[in-house]
Amino acid sequence: MPLITMTTDFGMSDGYVGIMKGVILSIAPDATIVDITHDIQPHAISQAAFVIAAAAPYFPSGTVHLVVVDPGVGSERRAIAVQIKRTYFVAPDNGVLTLILQPLSGNPPPAKIIHLRRRKYWLPQVSNTFHGRDVFAPVAAHLATGTPITKLGKSIDDPVLLDLPRAQQNLDGSIEGHILYVDRFGNLVTNIPASWLKAEVPWRIEVAGRVIDKLSSTYADVQRGQLLALVGSSGMLELSVREGSAALMLGVGENVPVKARPVSQD
Amino acid sequence: MPLITMTTDFGMSDGYVGIMKGVILSIAPDATIVDITHDIQPHAISQAAFVIAAAAPYFPSGTVHLVVVDPGVGSERRAIAVQIKRTYFVAPDNGVLTLILQPLSGNPPPAKIIHLRRRKYWLPQVSNTFHGRDVFAPVAAHLATGTPITKLGKSIDDPVLLDLPRAQQNLDGSIEGHILYVDRFGNLVTNIPASWLKAEVPWRIEVAGRVIDKLSSTYADVQRGQLLALVGSSGMLELSVREGSAALMLGVGENVPVKARPVSQD
Amino acid sequence: MPLITMTTDFGMSDGYVGIMKGVILSIAPDATIVDITHDIQPHAISQAAFVIAAAAPYFPSGTVHLVVVDPGVGSERRAIAVQIKRTYFVAPDNGVLTLILQPLSGNPPPAKIIHLRRRKYWLPQVSNTFHGRDVFAPVAAHLATGTPITKLGKSIDDPVLLDLPRAQQNLDGSIEGHILYVDRFGNLVTNIPASWLKAEVPWRIEVAGRVIDKLSSTYADVQRGQLLALVGSSGMLELSVREGSAALMLGVGENVPVKARPVSQD
Repeated sequence: MPLITMTTDFGMSDGYVGIMKGVILSIAPDATIVDITHDIQPHAISQAAFVIAAAAPYFPSGTVHLVVVDPGVGSERRAIAVQIKRTYFVAPDNGVLTLILQPLSGNPPPAKIIHLRRRKYWLPQVSNTFHGRDVFAPVAAHLATGTPITKLGKSIDDPVLLDLPRAQQNLDGSIEGHILYVDRFGNLVTNIPASWLKAEVPWRIEVAGRVIDKLSSTYADVQRGQLLALVGSSGMLELSVREGSAALMLGVGENVPVKARPVSQD
Repeated sequence: MPLITMTTDFGMSDGYVGIMKGVILSIAPDATIVDITHDIQPHAISQAAFVIAAAAPYFPSGTVHLVVVDPGVGSERRAIAVQIKRTYFVAPDNGVLTLILQPLSGNPPPAKIIHLRRRKYWLPQVSNTFHGRDVFAPVAAHLATGTPITKLGKSIDDPVLLDLPRAQQNLDGSIEGHILYVDRFGNLVTNIPASWLKAEVPWRIEVAGRVIDKLSSTYADVQRGQLLALVGSSGMLELSVREGSAALMLGVGENVPVKARPVSQD
Repeated sequence: MPLITMTTDFGMSDGYVGIMKGVILSIAPDATIVDITHDIQPHAISQAAFVIAAAAPYFPSGTVHLVVVDPGVGSERRAIAVQIKRTYFVAPDNGVLTLILQPLSGNPPPAKIIHLRRRKYWLPQVSNTFHGRDVFAPVAAHLATGTPITKLGKSIDDPVLLDLPRAQQNLDGSIEGHILYVDRFGNLVTNIPASWLKAEVPWRIEVAGRVIDKLSSTYADVQRGQLLALVGSSGMLELSVREGSAALMLGVGENVPVKARPVSQD
């Protein structure tokens, strides 16, 4: 049974997402559709880029991920489908797949990228304002039913990529990164990979003028309402408040710098 | 595999929708259930009428659409099921199916309308406050498993219909309509069908004291933050702001008048 | 086809719920997953306890209910699976299953409670912050595919139970209860079971200094905007305003006392 996920900024109040599911199930009646989220901030491409990159590894091989945050709908921006091993992505070519094509840690995976051009796999009538329904949903459904990706258009090698801030390691061992994402609980997810934070070294974390003097391993290491730094569920350094909101406590959000320093132990 | 959609004002926070799905899957274990929306404003019958009419055409033949916005639950209002070709609707008889029975453009389709009376197809115990669970969900599930609609009750021909504003064409060629729906992006969907706006004629659109001096074909025709008028994804005239909110810019909402005038070209 | 429900405080904006579904469908590809709600207030264990107890009875035998409101994630709190007849629950052992194990009316059902210890049924790598993904989702999926509950760990008989207020019947026939839950419509659900309110007796209800002088049977018994008391869809006494919000009108919420008195008829 083919699996299709959806990540959009359409919200759930207007029925747009339901319409896309109707289109998918008309073409692929046996598909299982999973909502990753429809609450990306309107037009927030980088937010969707983070969410799909965090979620995709937990889905089985063969899954088709439909990612539609598309402020340029109706313009000349391209529509693309991407294959990495046996996982597929369908999206506007606006950088929303940046962290799939260039992960924050590890090497870029080999990817086949197709510029969607074959109208045969779209709805017969294509509007200028809702390619989620008219182009992306039908293409995802066709991929899910086994249409080879190469039938959907021509191969390209110059996808649009966002210039997202990357963490860097300095000569003195310190790491400079940024807050990448703020979640519903007010957790601040940074772009500093856990693998950079050697466990045997004590670390001190600095953010927004505050110093956190160690890396915790779990929320329960601190009292309720206290700020802590730990490796979060996405494998990145996170700043959290136990049963509270680090975003509210610190008054910070995306793109704010975060520094991690190894503490000299002599 | 039978397909059932749901459109309600129940929200997703209280579990009411999940309960209805439990009832459906107890009767029709193989059903695929698609949420169109559960975020209709509480008791906003006309809003639900628009959303289901926009969504239904994108679902395959055989789909059962469950529409429960039901301020009159427990009163004498009737419950109905409607068959149009091979598509089914189950709803309270309060006008929520008005735009299914009387589309904004085109002729009313032939419809079989059944007053739900046969308690055999309901839950054994029927509350006075939650017919979504006790009446509508089980009836939708029975339709999805192949129960003929005529078994559910007696045929009627006087369904409740809302007196929704209809656009009108004047002798001078101008069109008077209204804003019908405001979506999450702040797009203002009018009740003026695209087919009335002849492409070869230049149009001028008036709303809330503002004049938009042409019909655009896509958001990209204007600069970011600029107001435009175009044919939207539901096939109606829409007013939008590129990467912004027309509702916020104009400060208007449902039922506000919109006028379209052909521009004299001599 | 196995059925799994989800009740969490994760919200739908961050993709956490989608990730859990990816984990479930990797293990149980044929599972049908139903969202009960993901909008439990962050860390509101008692709220989730009410919602799952109201919803579970409407699902078919064999259903696995996944309930993850887990402020103690990463601490020493236990993770449990519960079997009652042929229905299953998977949750942190923090009281979130209190009203399943000790219903508000009727006797506690016989339950098998398992302390989850067998890491073989978890994801290979277990984070300290997201057991929903790493422990609870895979365990639910394994139960859904037929793994016997006894394989998941050791039996226990001391689950954590919340000390929720219980309604009480006084010698003079009056009943003292509390508001247990406030829904999206502003309905105030109390912990007073319908079965305590004998139909042949007229009742007077007191809440927040207001007196409601009878029990209605349906919203339509009063005028729009008027306060009423009736048996709600969860089988408990509820206070409502017809097409309005009792929570807003009375300015009250959870834990506020409610009194029901039989009216002397001589």
